[in-house]
Amino acid sequence: MKLYDYRLAPNPRRVRIFLAEKKIEIPRVEIDIASQAHRTPEFLALNPAGTVPVLELDDGTAIAESVAICRYLEALSPEPPLFGSDRLSSARIEMWHRRVELELMVPVQHAVRNSHPVFATRGHGEGGAQSRDFVESGRRVAAATCDWLDRELATRRFVVGDAFSVADIALLVAIDFARLAELRLREGRPHLDRWYAEVAARPSAGA
Amino acid sequence: MKLYDYRLAPNPRRVRIFLAEKKIEIPRVEIDIASQAHRTPEFLALNPAGTVPVLELDDGTAIAESVAICRYLEALSPEPPLFGSDRLSSARIEMWHRRVELELMVPVQHAVRNSHPVFATRGHGEGGAQSRDFVESGRRVAAATCDWLDRELATRRFVVGDAFSVADIALLVAIDFARLAELRLREGRPHLDRWYAEVAARPSAGA
Repeated sequence: MKLYDYRLAPNPRRVRIFLAEKKIEIPRVEIDIASQAHRTPEFLALNPAGTVPVLELDDGTAIAESVAICRYLEALSPEPPLFGSDRLSSARIEMWHRRVELELMVPVQHAVRNSHPVFATRGHGEGGAQSRDFVESGRRVAAATCDWLDRELATRRFVVGDAFSVADIALLVAIDFARLAELRLREGRPHLDRWYAEVAARPSAGA
Repeated sequence: MKLYDYRLAPNPRRVRIFLAEKKIEIPRVEIDIASQAHRTPEFLALNPAGTVPVLELDDGTAIAESVAICRYLEALSPEPPLFGSDRLSSARIEMWHRRVELELMVPVQHAVRNSHPVFATRGHGEGGAQSRDFVESGRRVAAATCDWLDRELATRRFVVGDAFSVADIALLVAIDFARLAELRLREGRPHLDRWYAEVAARPSAGA
């Protein structure tokens, strides 16, 4: 197996943290998106969407999308379980993982993409302009979701109960990525901040 | 088990189609969102996010988020497998399911929410105004994703290979929901249209 990776992007980081939690080491190929390495014919043959990460299996099969890669790795290497260990814990992790993705990561991406200078010509506005509506809606939804998570984390150690899961990985990555839009999501949210301090101190967080 | 449902919304429909494909019948409780039934203290105690669908288990445990519910049902009733039957098919279904959700359903929701009169005060603009950027970006991304899916569907029967899966359910629901934003996504896309005709003719599509 081989992982096509990019140090600076949030989705590849989710896979790197997942691998570190599983203690799996696989060769990595850095795809430098800044220099358009994801737009070469070779890379587009592997993943027509032009996104990283991509996991290439030994027979050449390519799996794109960070969560699809993580599920494949979970099936290969079930311990420790990061998607749940029975049908109820799996469903609860899926529920929270989706809430973190759709109600936090997506709005954070909207805010970053429409405010950070590196995306100046790749925003969601007309002709690739950056859109103020996307920034403000993204900031508003991200803040509301973090208020909710702060209340939830008052009652338990991790996003889903007492076990670290992919939902924690998604939340850590989203909070860190949000800084690119000047969003400091831990501020004023003591339970989220307590959770962050613990999760960010795990060795996997440096991956 | 009991399913909290709403006839007019796309996410509950995903669960209804899933149940019909599995031939599972469970009692349903209609939550009339138009009359704010999702904002009552009883419903918010069940699901603080105030969204439908919700699956309530016999012990009172609530599972929200359509895909989390579907995964729980898949574990209860594995046949026919709609999330894949081995680690590679599961990963490929997850990959395509996510692409349909993030690159089609999310932009379609943006377009509907910011153009349809029923959401006039619940758009993504300032103070709940509808945002033209969200409509236009949503329409653009949805069209590009459907162009891609049209090319992919030239090569195979379903979204992922020869077996019907949750990715087909997500695509059917997104295409139908898009009509609320005046988006006719099958037009000019013959392979997507051929796929739609087959999937929309399954008995489950009426669920």
